[in-house]
Amino acid sequence: MAATSFRNDYSEGAHPRLLQALVEASAEQNDGYGLDRHSLRAAELIRARLGGINADVHFLSGGTQTNLLAISSFLRPHQAAISVQGGHIATHETGAIEATGHKVLTVPGVEGKLTPALVAQVLGEHTDEHMVQPKLVYVSNSSEVGTIYSRGELQALSAFCREHGLLLFLDGARLGSALAAEGNDLSLADIAALCDAFYIGGTKNGALAGEALVVCNDALKPDLRYLVKQRGAMLAKGMFLGAQFEALFEGDLFLELARHANAMASRLRAALSAMGVSFLADSPTNQLFPVLPAAAVETLEQRYGFHRWQAMADGRIAIRLVTSWATQAEAVDDFIASARGVLGEPDVRAESIARGKVA
Amino acid sequence: MAATSFRNDYSEGAHPRLLQALVEASAEQNDGYGLDRHSLRAAELIRARLGGINADVHFLSGGTQTNLLAISSFLRPHQAAISVQGGHIATHETGAIEATGHKVLTVPGVEGKLTPALVAQVLGEHTDEHMVQPKLVYVSNSSEVGTIYSRGELQALSAFCREHGLLLFLDGARLGSALAAEGNDLSLADIAALCDAFYIGGTKNGALAGEALVVCNDALKPDLRYLVKQRGAMLAKGMFLGAQFEALFEGDLFLELARHANAMASRLRAALSAMGVSFLADSPTNQLFPVLPAAAVETLEQRYGFHRWQAMADGRIAIRLVTSWATQAEAVDDFIASARGVLGEPDVRAESIARGKVA
Amino acid sequence: MAATSFRNDYSEGAHPRLLQALVEASAEQNDGYGLDRHSLRAAELIRARLGGINADVHFLSGGTQTNLLAISSFLRPHQAAISVQGGHIATHETGAIEATGHKVLTVPGVEGKLTPALVAQVLGEHTDEHMVQPKLVYVSNSSEVGTIYSRGELQALSAFCREHGLLLFLDGARLGSALAAEGNDLSLADIAALCDAFYIGGTKNGALAGEALVVCNDALKPDLRYLVKQRGAMLAKGMFLGAQFEALFEGDLFLELARHANAMASRLRAALSAMGVSFLADSPTNQLFPVLPAAAVETLEQRYGFHRWQAMADGRIAIRLVTSWATQAEAVDDFIASARGVLGEPDVRAESIARGKVA
Amino acid sequence: MAATSFRNDYSEGAHPRLLQALVEASAEQNDGYGLDRHSLRAAELIRARLGGINADVHFLSGGTQTNLLAISSFLRPHQAAISVQGGHIATHETGAIEATGHKVLTVPGVEGKLTPALVAQVLGEHTDEHMVQPKLVYVSNSSEVGTIYSRGELQALSAFCREHGLLLFLDGARLGSALAAEGNDLSLADIAALCDAFYIGGTKNGALAGEALVVCNDALKPDLRYLVKQRGAMLAKGMFLGAQFEALFEGDLFLELARHANAMASRLRAALSAMGVSFLADSPTNQLFPVLPAAAVETLEQRYGFHRWQAMADGRIAIRLVTSWATQAEAVDDFIASARGVLGEPDVRAESIARGKVA
Repeated sequence: MAATSFRNDYSEGAHPRLLQALVEASAEQNDGYGLDRHSLRAAELIRARLGGINADVHFLSGGTQTNLLAISSFLRPHQAAISVQGGHIATHETGAIEATGHKVLTVPGVEGKLTPALVAQVLGEHTDEHMVQPKLVYVSNSSEVGTIYSRGELQALSAFCREHGLLLFLDGARLGSALAAEGNDLSLADIAALCDAFYIGGTKNGALAGEALVVCNDALKPDLRYLVKQRGAMLAKGMFLGAQFEALFEGDLFLELARHANAMASRLRAALSAMGVSFLADSPTNQLFPVLPAAAVETLEQRYGFHRWQAMADGRIAIRLVTSWATQAEAVDDFIASARGVLGEPDVRAESIARGKVA
Repeated sequence: MAATSFRNDYSEGAHPRLLQALVEASAEQNDGYGLDRHSLRAAELIRARLGGINADVHFLSGGTQTNLLAISSFLRPHQAAISVQGGHIATHETGAIEATGHKVLTVPGVEGKLTPALVAQVLGEHTDEHMVQPKLVYVSNSSEVGTIYSRGELQALSAFCREHGLLLFLDGARLGSALAAEGNDLSLADIAALCDAFYIGGTKNGALAGEALVVCNDALKPDLRYLVKQRGAMLAKGMFLGAQFEALFEGDLFLELARHANAMASRLRAALSAMGVSFLADSPTNQLFPVLPAAAVETLEQRYGFHRWQAMADGRIAIRLVTSWATQAEAVDDFIASARGVLGEPDVRAESIARGKVA
Repeated sequence: MAATSFRNDYSEGAHPRLLQALVEASAEQNDGYGLDRHSLRAAELIRARLGGINADVHFLSGGTQTNLLAISSFLRPHQAAISVQGGHIATHETGAIEATGHKVLTVPGVEGKLTPALVAQVLGEHTDEHMVQPKLVYVSNSSEVGTIYSRGELQALSAFCREHGLLLFLDGARLGSALAAEGNDLSLADIAALCDAFYIGGTKNGALAGEALVVCNDALKPDLRYLVKQRGAMLAKGMFLGAQFEALFEGDLFLELARHANAMASRLRAALSAMGVSFLADSPTNQLFPVLPAAAVETLEQRYGFHRWQAMADGRIAIRLVTSWATQAEAVDDFIASARGVLGEPDVRAESIARGKVA
Repeated sequence: MAATSFRNDYSEGAHPRLLQALVEASAEQNDGYGLDRHSLRAAELIRARLGGINADVHFLSGGTQTNLLAISSFLRPHQAAISVQGGHIATHETGAIEATGHKVLTVPGVEGKLTPALVAQVLGEHTDEHMVQPKLVYVSNSSEVGTIYSRGELQALSAFCREHGLLLFLDGARLGSALAAEGNDLSLADIAALCDAFYIGGTKNGALAGEALVVCNDALKPDLRYLVKQRGAMLAKGMFLGAQFEALFEGDLFLELARHANAMASRLRAALSAMGVSFLADSPTNQLFPVLPAAAVETLEQRYGFHRWQAMADGRIAIRLVTSWATQAEAVDDFIASARGVLGEPDVRAESIARGKVA
């Protein structure tokens, strides 16, 4: 690994307050399988933020697990999920949804997001029993390219889904970063009101592992614990998840950590923009996709950890930089200085600008 | 919960040395998805105990998850697992194996254990393509009733399996307790030599969560990480599992914890036997199944946590007492004193003895 | 194959009236996928016999296909079917139900049949989310050992199921023989009123292939054609099934054929009984299970086709004799004569009687 | 239905020679489950055409059934099939492949066909265990748009697959029409040599139902009959399929019927081309996709059965016309006359030509 990694938001472990909670809970005797006092209280703390919606909350260990569990519980065998082409369930879960028997239908997204028109297009193409029946709309917030849904966008999707008998499920692996983003106008209560179910990601926001699946639609609640057990997702020591979420939600820690990650990303974005760098998508969250000359990428990756995301037609490379609750300002500034060293001379910048989309 | 719980071996959290390892690893930047330094080292530490067998080691979060992942990876769609009727996969995993498409064939066990004769009986009943094809033999050590396999017993099963083209898979949710039990003559190296795959349970032996799946048979190794991801079992922060197993296996902690649990169980067993109590099965491990008068059970459960296991024909009740790495001698002695208070009068004991199997 | 086979009721092809229907329909142009005029009319003809219950009818190609399709459509992932141990779905469908993700829970039956008490026992053992949730009761009529349900028995099961939120599904692979049996007091209308769904077997009653799945419970009807397609069960030339069922149900042919099969079985049973032969179960339908001395079985199987069913403790062998719509009285009489040749001497008979259950 | 249907090649039933075979076989006693003399002989007749390749042959009832059975037998859980976007398994099987747990990866085809370059693109995008593992290449011949693979094209695909450890599976629902097409240079023996498995479609070439799955790769042969049973695809009266294939392959009937269907399509194509009509794809087989003015489509569909296939950007509509073994020249000529009535005036034709692609 390079000296400092911007590879993802799960390089570091848990925030100290969560570790402290685990140390304390470890010394107790707790009921097993998620029925411990910490899981129950964490669920209450989350429910209290849902604007009065009486949701069921289940704590799980990871995003793929949460997605496959929820989707396979909500759908009948002939029903399918709709996702943007780059959606996590469509690309990076090793066919987890299909392994439970369900097709994932994809459409190209708009900046990584679904719209009613895109969903309508899928419905229009699936009209009889020779094709799967589209039934669940899957969205990620923040999306896989770092963008966020506005309240208006999510309202429109939700209204469309309810009108057409579709379920709306929101993957919140990076929901903290979305809710803490500049320009966000969605709250947890909004999401609970608009979605049939969603999850709140802990793993990418300061927990060792943990996602809180929130089921708002009464029809989807029955027997979900059976599915949790059947899919191998029910931890014997469920307090491991509950105690961490208790720590995240008993005060404002969940959003605090996300705000820090976003601030670190903003610092990076501002500095890179000032160097004339353009971005693949307009992300206000903790994932940035700057497009850099290949030589610059090669130099930077000798020192820093990050993913090459996409090769551009003009030879440049879009990389992915991810910040987290644990990213230090010094590391960001160090990266910025290095980037300036490679990109910063006026000539290079001018050349970049001349090449195209860079503002 | 009662003041002191003997309900299971996952009431308490992690041993302090494991917690310390997590605190330290949390402060680092680690590669994700189980490719971190701790997971790699923990795998090495385990491999070093396998007598030269070059096994693959995968760290997972729980027993059901490990069982469903391994079995569904090892079998083709028409193949089935063979288990005793009380086997964990047959009864207490909410049909997890079936949910991956595979039938679990059951036979009554001998003290919770399979024998070549029992497996042969299943083979004899499944002879053509109108029935599933038995392919994998599933055993638990210690078993669901606390008994252990001797080296001779496991050798016989292994030889039978190899002769008949069957895979032998050992569920080691409580393998620590089995290996640390009085009378045990199996080692990890023996198990690796005799089984195609097995797992070493951490959750029930001092970890917050964690099972180490050990795959010995080369034919079963390819692509297992795909399955880990697909089943939702690949933790982004895989170091959570690796760091704990590193702590368990860098010295002798794994067996130390199991020896403590067994010692606490022995103390209970000896004292109860001395009161004339009989047991459902002859368990040298950390699960005991004493058979008590119903009135005694009612009195004891007001103060202690434990499961009622089985109602006996004569009105008595078999309960399950489980000790763990964290069980304190004081708690055991407290339970013994209470039991003596309820059972201790000569008359009651005599009556028990008169009723049957009690020595 | 032996000169004359009593091996099963699918040795012969289709009854001439069904073949004629296929020849005629082949010359037409029909809509595909079961929406042809013959399938629609056959469904109407069946519905007209259901006492006013407005069922959906789907024509399928075989029993295993029908069972897996129906059960996987009716259940959620964590739910299980309950069957007697010898139930077709439990033993002779190569794990077809498990392959769709569902466990089959079994209990020993009473003469091959389920009772409310047996179902209650399964419910009592499955009490929380660590075990599958029993949800569908599977019965076969006639059963796998040739017995039939009385109206009272099916009413009791149905009442129990409705009280406990269970679905009742009846496998009617040999429903014709059951309804035509001496002593039967059930009608198709009764079955439709008592079951949530059932099927009427054509394959074993004169069709080349064909089962009519009848879904009575409105909640189970939606989207079943999606499942039919998804499971590979939707024939492009659906008229192949529809035309045959039209021929079976436009008059009384369905029961006529079953009555013939039963009559041939009765003739066999009466003659064997007169020779002092006992039977495994008291079957009034087209499957008989006479228990014969091993030497007699060996002699008879040189000339006739039949299955050895079960080896008895006393060395005798229970064989299965099956008659069909196509069995000829001459063949029956020929078998009887041969049996008399082997069994008929007073000494042999006396010996049999002395051995046990034989009247 | 319109007076004459060009809707598909399964509107009519079976060819008289097949019906005759069924009548004759119905009068016999046959072994069940595909082990009858007709199935065995039909398999021999097919094997005799495979150029010495010792393939296993299984007779099944339909294309979706065959595809799901073969693909789920050949793949491990994390492996995926690759298909063109319009491939039958990707679009018109109600997610049958996904229902067995496997993702179908799609790429836009070239005239409905896959190429090594397209497959290479999919491989390039699936590089680690976070994504499914592409393993099986699915092609249809003739394709879903009526085109055929040349020997060179299939050889190139086959070589690429073998080099990259991929399986090549050919869907031959309309293989008869492909092999009988003008310009075809593939034989059954070529296909057997180049593919790991394929199937020969009977349903769309004169049978009531029936597809012959031919497995050439030894590694894929074991235990396939278990899968046939488990998926509900094993007919009790397997002779129903065997007798029909025996009739198709004991002489040249299979290709004869296909040649007739192709001749009827050619007659349509030639006449429509002469009227200046263009086609979506260059199909030499029994499916044609002429592009017609909307008004013409509306007029024609009052009299003839066919599918509207695709709305063109210029307002015209591509329809699908399908001929079969049973299509009569009179019906074709009648359609041509009607088309000429609507399209035939010079003005209309000129307008069409002016609009674009029409030659």
